[in-house]
Amino acid sequence: MLYLVGLGLSDETDITVKGLEVVKRASRVYLEAYTSILLVNQEVLESYYGRSIMIADREMVESNSDEILRDADKEDVAFCVVGDPFGATTHTDLVLRARELKIPVSTVPNASIMSGIGACGLQLYNFGQTVSMVFFTDTWKPASFYDRIKENRSIGLHTLVLVDIKVKEQSLENMARGRLIYEPPRYMTVGQCASQMLEIEEEKQEGVYTKDSLAIGAARVGGKTEKFVSGTLEELCNQDEALGPPLHSLVLLGKRTHELEHDFAREFAVDKEKWDRIWKADYAQS
Amino acid sequence: MLYLVGLGLSDETDITVKGLEVVKRASRVYLEAYTSILLVNQEVLESYYGRSIMIADREMVESNSDEILRDADKEDVAFCVVGDPFGATTHTDLVLRARELKIPVSTVPNASIMSGIGACGLQLYNFGQTVSMVFFTDTWKPASFYDRIKENRSIGLHTLVLVDIKVKEQSLENMARGRLIYEPPRYMTVGQCASQMLEIEEEKQEGVYTKDSLAIGAARVGGKTEKFVSGTLEELCNQDEALGPPLHSLVLLGKRTHELEHDFAREFAVDKEKWDRIWKADYAQS
Repeated sequence: MLYLVGLGLSDETDITVKGLEVVKRASRVYLEAYTSILLVNQEVLESYYGRSIMIADREMVESNSDEILRDADKEDVAFCVVGDPFGATTHTDLVLRARELKIPVSTVPNASIMSGIGACGLQLYNFGQTVSMVFFTDTWKPASFYDRIKENRSIGLHTLVLVDIKVKEQSLENMARGRLIYEPPRYMTVGQCASQMLEIEEEKQEGVYTKDSLAIGAARVGGKTEKFVSGTLEELCNQDEALGPPLHSLVLLGKRTHELEHDFAREFAVDKEKWDRIWKADYAQS
Repeated sequence: MLYLVGLGLSDETDITVKGLEVVKRASRVYLEAYTSILLVNQEVLESYYGRSIMIADREMVESNSDEILRDADKEDVAFCVVGDPFGATTHTDLVLRARELKIPVSTVPNASIMSGIGACGLQLYNFGQTVSMVFFTDTWKPASFYDRIKENRSIGLHTLVLVDIKVKEQSLENMARGRLIYEPPRYMTVGQCASQMLEIEEEKQEGVYTKDSLAIGAARVGGKTEKFVSGTLEELCNQDEALGPPLHSLVLLGKRTHELEHDFAREFAVDKEKWDRIWKADYAQS
């Protein structure tokens, strides 16, 4: 059996009891470690689970999945994923490949950022599609997120923006020379995300949002040091210190809101009076 | 401390290790048991957790929350919620009340149907807002879900439809006479949901969807007996036997799809050739 085991959002104790039983008895244990990370490292997990873990990087999952699936028709293989196993496309692919090989698959769900973000006080019912934000370079500024946000806002919905992480990336030079030297990991912050959003609005000028649009920055959702900061996009450009270490996410508010959402998120506001003023003018339902 | 503890979707072993530790050491343990249910009963949970559990019904949570919060400034109270604690508005209210009373609050996230539904093979990125479907009566057929689905479909997105459960409901007669006699619990099925959807389309005639629109029925998501059936809304009106016991949910597909979604969900199709035909005509991205 191939088990897809969700690890949840934060540390080694976020695994479910069911998931822990699977990990303890599986023949091999993989950890998918390129679409998200926990707040603890591999050694902590190995010690807690009492198992050694093989790191499955993008190359292995996307090009060498048969190694992960080896003998999974006869024994149990645990493929562990931060959050919930069905957050990312890649894992759908793995399941389809398992089906081709007649390997049975079982899923152990867990918290995902897509539901855990509810802890910021915005109602999950009021969220539209989720978007991703990648690190811009001088020459590459993919802006498809902008159109998706436009769609969500056209019907009043909030947008969860998941931000980029770069692990095990090679510099162009090292890649060209075939040197297996990797850059230090990089995790996008709420500040970087907010300023890239404003950069694209500046360029497109479609008024999908402005520097005064309300948003919530989230850090380490579901962890003991979980932190939210709410304010305008402009304010959130400068709140990385308050938010602290990765992982970050950002929610851009839609205009279909509930009073409870105002009250709950006001607690986290950079400037509570400004929050109230903009909310009353632009977000309050009549 | 008030702990909001997510229990996950299925049975007693879906609690996280962190959540189980909280439940074991809390002074009092409540179970919110009116917005969703697990597939196991209270006795199984009590025996597994080694704790007695107080059932918190709607009346208690909404009108008597101070009893739940009693002494939570001095001791630990665990408020357990099926799925993730922030799925429903009610729990936001409880947190706001705790803040007023200066009671610290901590959340233990878990799988929610809003992310667990990803196991049906549709990408979570392609979902719009979630809607709810209540049991219609002869005189009460609330159809706000229809406008929400229209919005989602106008931008190509899938819609998760969460279906009604009725627990601890009184008949009008018993309520009028003040008799605390409760009706047997009722859980809406995918078949009831699909036929109520078609009833409203028939009435509104806005062409938001038709009897040939593709959808996926889901039962007991995240559980060992998890089951999906995909097909047209008309087909799903008659698949309750195949789906089996509660809880059910339904996803109506949007037209912005990925080929992987087709392949994954085809496996569950009532009629695979029909699935392919309709997908090719109406859902495939050019």
